[in-house]
Amino acid sequence: MPRRIITLTTDFGLSDHFVGTMKGIILGLNPLAEVVDISHQVHPFEIAEAGFLLWQAYRYFPKKTVHVVVVDPGVGTSRRPILAEAAGQYFVAPDNGVLSMIYSREKHKVRQVTAERFFLTPVSETFHGRDIFAPIAAHLAGGTPPARFGKLITDYLRLEFDRPTRTGKRIWTGAILKIDHFGNVITNFHVGEFPTVQTRPFVMAVGADRLTRVVRTFADCPIGEVCVIVGSSGYLEVISNRASAAKMLGCAVGAPAELTMY
Amino acid sequence: MPRRIITLTTDFGLSDHFVGTMKGIILGLNPLAEVVDISHQVHPFEIAEAGFLLWQAYRYFPKKTVHVVVVDPGVGTSRRPILAEAAGQYFVAPDNGVLSMIYSREKHKVRQVTAERFFLTPVSETFHGRDIFAPIAAHLAGGTPPARFGKLITDYLRLEFDRPTRTGKRIWTGAILKIDHFGNVITNFHVGEFPTVQTRPFVMAVGADRLTRVVRTFADCPIGEVCVIVGSSGYLEVISNRASAAKMLGCAVGAPAELTMY
Amino acid sequence: MPRRIITLTTDFGLSDHFVGTMKGIILGLNPLAEVVDISHQVHPFEIAEAGFLLWQAYRYFPKKTVHVVVVDPGVGTSRRPILAEAAGQYFVAPDNGVLSMIYSREKHKVRQVTAERFFLTPVSETFHGRDIFAPIAAHLAGGTPPARFGKLITDYLRLEFDRPTRTGKRIWTGAILKIDHFGNVITNFHVGEFPTVQTRPFVMAVGADRLTRVVRTFADCPIGEVCVIVGSSGYLEVISNRASAAKMLGCAVGAPAELTMY
Repeated sequence: MPRRIITLTTDFGLSDHFVGTMKGIILGLNPLAEVVDISHQVHPFEIAEAGFLLWQAYRYFPKKTVHVVVVDPGVGTSRRPILAEAAGQYFVAPDNGVLSMIYSREKHKVRQVTAERFFLTPVSETFHGRDIFAPIAAHLAGGTPPARFGKLITDYLRLEFDRPTRTGKRIWTGAILKIDHFGNVITNFHVGEFPTVQTRPFVMAVGADRLTRVVRTFADCPIGEVCVIVGSSGYLEVISNRASAAKMLGCAVGAPAELTMY
Repeated sequence: MPRRIITLTTDFGLSDHFVGTMKGIILGLNPLAEVVDISHQVHPFEIAEAGFLLWQAYRYFPKKTVHVVVVDPGVGTSRRPILAEAAGQYFVAPDNGVLSMIYSREKHKVRQVTAERFFLTPVSETFHGRDIFAPIAAHLAGGTPPARFGKLITDYLRLEFDRPTRTGKRIWTGAILKIDHFGNVITNFHVGEFPTVQTRPFVMAVGADRLTRVVRTFADCPIGEVCVIVGSSGYLEVISNRASAAKMLGCAVGAPAELTMY
Repeated sequence: MPRRIITLTTDFGLSDHFVGTMKGIILGLNPLAEVVDISHQVHPFEIAEAGFLLWQAYRYFPKKTVHVVVVDPGVGTSRRPILAEAAGQYFVAPDNGVLSMIYSREKHKVRQVTAERFFLTPVSETFHGRDIFAPIAAHLAGGTPPARFGKLITDYLRLEFDRPTRTGKRIWTGAILKIDHFGNVITNFHVGEFPTVQTRPFVMAVGADRLTRVVRTFADCPIGEVCVIVGSSGYLEVISNRASAAKMLGCAVGAPAELTMY
């Protein structure tokens, strides 16, 4: 059995036994697995946040890595467990749209996982991370071919949370994807689609604030001011130098952001 | 030396060096150990919470796993370090009752650890996780037989925090064992002892609220209502659909819960 | 490639992808690395806190461990990445003084890392943990000799945050280095320099409070009182028995502490 990485992204937090229990299952089934936490502090049930977190991280993992996402408000209902293959890696998640950013950026195949022989018995109604997703990941990392888990499907759920829509000749309306630990406000405007923010005038409107200044580094933003920066994943972020832009603007995840290009 | 798992359950939090330092000791003594965090966010000194967390997780780990619990308000006093064997696994902890749920559910043996040759020198008065418990775990996971650590004892501390008491013909008084990350309120009523909650009328009283509805999945609980569910560990939980039941009820760990069966 | 430990100490928190992404880079470059988190909850940009955390932990790790610190308010500016060798271990960090406690206590050598062939391309302006520090650590743990990363330098930044200054015949003025998870207030007075606190009268002044009692264990401090203890790293701490001394005193990191010896 080759040594393979399994990553975990959940909204389980770290104060319960949930994450440790999943790791116990994984290591019991596959003692060579290397389990890496992406984050367990996704806001409860925030599918877009989980999908964005994973999207920022997966490219930096080696081929054959198995990424497990358990943000699953539909646990116990008929929503399906799925296994996606993309970019030479594997993705195991509930079919609730959490992998949409992978779907829209990578060539991919998606299977509905129906092979209940891999599940724990009995499967609980409330903790599929332990009973379904952890064992799938352990077997997959151990070399079980994807086709053994279930058939390809095409009607998996795709959500659109990562792209602004054009709402005027020079205006796009987007949203705040995430507020990071430092209070940086990450929008869903990607520099690849809006490259001229670095060279031409623009207005980024967030709440009552209108930002017009783009800087290259945090240190370039004058203390006490709020600026736009191209974040490390390519999305435009509203930041402040050694301060929380989110607090200064008073904004929250999901709120709109409007970009006007001149 | 075989590759073995060591789990950690503490009230150390994650903002200090404590957990990292314990892992340094373990990996220095036993480079093949695989250390898994159950949780480090036990409320300070909450022995019952730590014991419940570990009890929910240990069954999902392979044989020979070493579980270390350091929730230890008596650090530096004469309370004894112990090593328990149960269910084919090992448990290393202070003798303060934190393993009581293991004792009452599994055939077990308990030793007082007296073999100071395994401890770091000098042993500090305040950080036995580093100086005593981590090295015991590392040596045990490395194959040192339990008998080398000390003699069997029978006067280890047992606490009763995990079972309600009968307080009327149809009434049992229990307690809230834990409030999880999602605000689900976990009581110490186990479905194994109260199976008829799933089929017959009951009233679960928590604070001023009286709950009478049991549901199978979170999604079955109408939005805005509070319901009873059989949790993934078999305990009855008071939950709400995509909301914090703990906030809605205004209750806290250790508060009483009363079950009346009809 | 030998199996080597890489520790991480950052102010990244755990709610973002940052830490997981660094681990992806490390394990992709060096599949045998064992990554251990010291803490990711350093207060944002608090260099002294990060340096103190690492200093408390590093001695408990085996030789050849690679310690990475990313608390880096100057990311994207001209501050240099450095690689220090001390105590048979390696330290990778920005040159912002975060390793000062190592410098003042261990024989050491410091190199400026200039070998850009080890960096990710392109190097972002905002996430050198991913693009510079993680790959350096992975290669170093994989056996690349330190000299391959850059030349020795002597003008690295040293800060003085860990020692009180004498401000009177019998008076020293120090500071609060850290408040730990339990609310213990850790000062920069080390028992090695102030051994007589254990045997002779003293006054430790923190805010409006004046403490005169030293105890050996937490349990020796009467409930409701605040005492001084020699912490597990040798620094004097202001503590309370099963309560938060920091809350009782109303004090914060960086605030002064004054010791008078009689």
